[in-house]
Order: sequence, then C-alpha cells, then structure tokens
Amino acid sequence: MKPIRLAVLGSTGSIGRQTLEVVRSLPGRFNVIALAAGGNVTLLEEQVREFRPRYVCAGREADYLMDRVGTRGQAARWAEMEEIAAHPDVDLVVVATVGSAGLEPTLAAVRAGKAVALANKEVLVMAGHIITAEARRSRAELRPIDSEHSAIWQCLWGEDRDSIERIIITASGGPFRDTPLQELARVTAQEALRHPNWQMGQKITVDSATLLNKGLECIEARWLFDVPLERIDVILHRESIVHSLVEFCDGSLKAQLSIPDMRLPIQCALTYPGRLPGVSVPRLDLKLIGTLTFGKPDTKQYPCLVLALEAGRRGGSCPAVLAAADEIAVQHFLAGHIRFPDIAHIVSDALNSHRPLANPSLDEVLHADAWARSYTEDWVKAKA
Amino acid sequence: MKPIRLAVLGSTGSIGRQTLEVVRSLPGRFNVIALAAGGNVTLLEEQVREFRPRYVCAGREADYLMDRVGTRGQAARWAEMEEIAAHPDVDLVVVATVGSAGLEPTLAAVRAGKAVALANKEVLVMAGHIITAEARRSRAELRPIDSEHSAIWQCLWGEDRDSIERIIITASGGPFRDTPLQELARVTAQEALRHPNWQMGQKITVDSATLLNKGLECIEARWLFDVPLERIDVILHRESIVHSLVEFCDGSLKAQLSIPDMRLPIQCALTYPGRLPGVSVPRLDLKLIGTLTFGKPDTKQYPCLVLALEAGRRGGSCPAVLAAADEIAVQHFLAGHIRFPDIAHIVSDALNSHRPLANPSLDEVLHADAWARSYTEDWVKAKA
Repeated sequence: MKPIRLAVLGSTGSIGRQTLEVVRSLPGRFNVIALAAGGNVTLLEEQVREFRPRYVCAGREADYLMDRVGTRGQAARWAEMEEIAAHPDVDLVVVATVGSAGLEPTLAAVRAGKAVALANKEVLVMAGHIITAEARRSRAELRPIDSEHSAIWQCLWGEDRDSIERIIITASGGPFRDTPLQELARVTAQEALRHPNWQMGQKITVDSATLLNKGLECIEARWLFDVPLERIDVILHRESIVHSLVEFCDGSLKAQLSIPDMRLPIQCALTYPGRLPGVSVPRLDLKLIGTLTFGKPDTKQYPCLVLALEAGRRGGSCPAVLAAADEIAVQHFLAGHIRFPDIAHIVSDALNSHRPLANPSLDEVLHADAWARSYTEDWVKAKA
Repeated sequence: MKPIRLAVLGSTGSIGRQTLEVVRSLPGRFNVIALAAGGNVTLLEEQVREFRPRYVCAGREADYLMDRVGTRGQAARWAEMEEIAAHPDVDLVVVATVGSAGLEPTLAAVRAGKAVALANKEVLVMAGHIITAEARRSRAELRPIDSEHSAIWQCLWGEDRDSIERIIITASGGPFRDTPLQELARVTAQEALRHPNWQMGQKITVDSATLLNKGLECIEARWLFDVPLERIDVILHRESIVHSLVEFCDGSLKAQLSIPDMRLPIQCALTYPGRLPGVSVPRLDLKLIGTLTFGKPDTKQYPCLVLALEAGRRGGSCPAVLAAADEIAVQHFLAGHIRFPDIAHIVSDALNSHRPLANPSLDEVLHADAWARSYTEDWVKAKA
C-alpha cells in the first residue's frame, strides 16, 4: 500500500502534535509532505528534522527557520498554506489551525478535491455554507477530528443520511458545572484551564467551561451532517465517555464511546475508511467505570451555549461574529483583563451590535470576523 | 418499489406477532407470502384472514384450519416449513420458531440463498458451524433479530469485520439479580416471568433470569460475527438501554441504544439496509433516564452463564445439549416440577454425561438434542 501523503496545518498546536504522534505510531502508513505552523518555531524545526517534509509554512519566522534547516541539507522549501493545502502531491490535509486562520487553506483544499481532516471548528462555523457547497462540487471529503463530530461520523458509517432523526452532542459541562452562579465572576483563568476530562489547547478549554464550544459544535455538526440545528441536541454527560449519539428515524440510537483521548478521533480521520491499532491508549472498561450520567444543561449556568445556538439559528454572518468575539474575549480572560462572565456579555453585545448578512461571501465573512475582533478589543478597552 | 416477499415461521409466538405488527405499520412494503405456526391455531386463522398468505404451515391442526379458511374462499394452501423457507417467491424468511424447530427450515432458507431474519437462537447455538458454512456458500444473508445481536449488527454497518476487537453483550440480570443466593431455591415460575425490562416469551424470560440466555447469545454471536468466544464479554446493564457494544482495534467502541421493545430490532431486520419509521415506539430520552449502569456478572449468582460459556468453548455437540437440556428443564420449572436452581443442575449434569462430538452433522446435532431432552426428562422423573 502506498503511504498517504499528508499536509498538517497547525502542526505545533495540541491537535497538530497529536496528529504527528499518530503518524509516528503507524510507520510506513503516512508520508508527511508539508508542515505549517504559526508560533512555535523551535518545535516546528524539530518536526521538520524528524518528518522531512517537502514544504514548510512557518509564518513570520519562516526565513529564520528555512535558513537554519537549510544549512543541514534538508530539501524543504517554503510555501503558503493555500499552496500546501491544494498541492497535487497531497492526499489528505489535516487542518489543525485555530480560529479563522484555517478558513482559506481549507477552502483551497476543498476546491482541490482533497480529503480534509478538520479540527479547526471555526472554519465550518464561519463559512459552513461556502465550504460544504464547494465540497459537494469538488467531491472533497470532510472528515471531522473533534471527538463529538468524529463520534457522530462513526455512528453514520453504513447509514443513510436521510434516516437521521436527531444528533445528540454530549458535553462534560467543564470545570464549573457545579460552581454556584454567583461565584463564576471570581473564577480565574487557571481554574478555567483545569478541564475535568480532556487535555486540550487553552482556548478550547475555556470554551468548554462556558459551553460556547458546544454551541460551535452544534453549528459545525449542522454543516458536516446537513441536519438543521432544531434537530441537534446538547446533553450533559460528565464522564466524557459517550462522545455523541445519533438517533435514527426508527427510534434506534447509536453512540460512540472511548476513553477521552484526542489521538483516537485524529487517528480515525487519518486511517478512514479503515481502523488501525496505532497509538496505544488505555481501553475503556465499562465494568470499571460503572456509571454513565446524562442530564439537561442549565441555561443559566451556560449563557454562552444559548447565545451560540441563537447565533447559529440566525445564521449568515452571525456565527462568524460569535466565534471571533469569543476568541478575543477568551484571550482577554486568559490574560486576566476581564472576568469569566464577561465572555458571555461580550458575545451577547457583539451579536446585538452586528448587522447580519444572510448569505455572506468569504470576504464578507472575514469582514464580520474583523469587525467582531475590533468590537471586542474596544469593549475590553472601555471596561479597563 | 416492489414489496418484499416475506415468510414468517412461528407467526403466532411473541416475535411472530410483533413481526406482523411491523408489517402492518408499513403498508405496501411487505407481502406476506407464507405463515407457519405450531400451537395457536385460532390466532393463525386470524393471521391468515388478515394477511392472505399463499402458503400456510399449521402443524398438527393444519387440516382443521385449511378446511375452515378454505370455505371462505382463501387461496392459501398447506406447505411444509422447509418448502416455504426455500420457495422461489420468498425474499426474506423470518425464523421466529422456538428451540430446535427452526433448524431445518433455516438450513433450507440458507441453502436457497434467502435473506434470513433469525430470532430463533437455538439454530445457531446448535448448528452454527453448518448454517454459517452454508450461508458462505450460497451468499445467504443472516440478519439477527435478538436485540443484542441486532445492536452488534447495527454497530458493524460500514465497518470492516477484521477491525472488531471485542463484542460486549449487555445483560439486564433478570428479576433475580438482587435475590440472595439462598433464596433462589424458593423462587416461583411466576416470579421468574416478571422480567424487569422486557416483554418476551416465557422460555426466554426464564433464560434471562438464569442468564443461560446470555450464554446462548454469546455462542450465537460467535457464529453471526465470526468472533471467537474469548473475545465476547458479558456485562451487566440493569436498564436494558444499551443493547450491546462493539470494541474496535483502535480503542473506539460503538453502542446501539433504544427503549427495550422487540419491534425495533425486528423492524431493523425487515427494512435493512434502510431504516423506516414504522411501528410507533416511545423515543429514548437519556436526559430523563439520567443514569446507565454497568457491572460484572457474579458467577455464583448465574451458574447457568458459566455452564453455557463452557459448553460454547467445548463446541461440537455440547451447545446442542446445553440448549435442549435447558429447554426441557425450563418447561418443568414453569410447570412447578423442579426448583429454579435445578435448571443449572440439570444442564451441568447433562453436559457432564454427554459424549461430545467435535464437528457434528445435522443428524448428529439432532441426535444430541434428542438425547439431552430424554436425559432431562429422566432427571426430572428420578427427582419426583
């Protein structure tokens, strides 16, 4: 079997690093053609030395990196993310960038008809209507990497999409699920980063505490599986064992379960349509776990979930504003500039101040994104 | 779409009646070509009048029935079960007979390359090696109707069979899961028939109380999914919501869930490869259910499970002896002739007294079956 030729966009982030772990665990299966990363040039240099990609995109520090790597006889050459994503020698593009950075490379990959393993949820949240329309045209295949969407995707293998009745996305509830409402104003960034079940990047961990993340996931699922938001439910499931469920028209449900480890959905997206025993993770033993619990999320505890679902229902440019305002708000919360409940206030104010466009072009989406970022910066400055 | 032409063997039993309910709920989808039943001739007459099959098999009272139905202008004619099962005008044979009665008709259907929806678990327990070898030869399709096997089957849609790591069959534990061991000698047939979650036939309900049923299901799964018994686990799950699970080689698991209602797996086997909203059953709401529990079955509480798995491991003619001894023992328990723990004693004694054959022919299987029935009758007589 010929190795699958990979491009990993965002290779130094949490998902990017775990993607390369999966690649490492399955020798001979993959050939890393291209790596792209933004900030961590030291790690990128290590990755380039290990995987010897033909193309590297290294953002602002590219020259420095290429110079250093070049002196040791590597053949890697610098390339733009869009070029990498659409390159004829790439079979599968892993989009593990964060925020709106993945938008244009994903679109390039989709237009080139690539298989795209998508971890960057903002891509579909902001431009799901554009990406999915292009994917239908080019027959590009979207494979989710998020644990929830991977679960739904796995449950749909061998099923007719028309028989989906409802998608049920599970949420752990994050570190503040039992914190009294009046105490949420005092929680620190450090506390928000202590996710009870998952090891993830900082931004997504805070989004898991507000449950805004779950709203983004509903919007993402809406596009990935072509199911209206009205038929997507969020259910609290503290244990993060059942990663999501699909209910079918006959009343039967399927669920996907595993221990919480992002390497599993990453590997699933990489080895699809097969499964392989690659990364070694502990096996789930339900006899030991004993109990799985499910409940309804309290809308007072999680105003960001309500805001996100509302933005999703309004559609158009609203989800882009939601995602961008949240991204900047979370940065300021992590930096200690605003309090935890301010994230919801900012997102709510940004959505209320935004004049939504019904079917925005990519430029209009990016404009809404820029507007929301600047709106949020102003909001924080005014507060200071 | 042309209606699917059905033969329902065992149409007056619990599964047979529910099969016809599913047929009724999907008008125009199915054409009942043939009905076969043993005991309840009154109900069979009603079914013949409603579904107007072309062939009827009515056991000992056939003449009486055909005479009565015949006088009212029905065209149905009497036929043997094997003839019905292999008839060129039949697409799908539902085998809802009980005990060894389904063996020869199933073999006839499989040899004729039919799709076979199998509810009669003794067929595979007794002759799995023969049935599956014939099915491979004729490319007959076996669709399970048991809720557990239907769950496993559904979880395997779109999956490569080679990627199965483990099958996990759930067991409610039956009505005596919390009954102290020393009290089991005093439980009555009436108590054994009070299954906490499922409405089923009498024999299978008692088998669910001893968990011998679960052992039969493991043996059945071994043949249906070509997975060795060593990789089939039984897990206690009191709520009967998760009907079974499959663990894959990558550490991912899939589960199938629904409210406990046999019409769902029956319908699934009938509408495969699609799903249809046919029978109206309440939808599963995990938020309302709240908690799902899992545990290890206590081997002291369930000696019949241990015996059944041991018979399965020994293989050959042993599972036939297990099933036949149990069938007769349960009849005597229901009639009040023996106590509940005697079922395990009988099964154990029968297996110990049996001289196993390694790769029995159908005749040898039927001979082992007859031997075990007679052994059990003698056991009970000696006790009286």
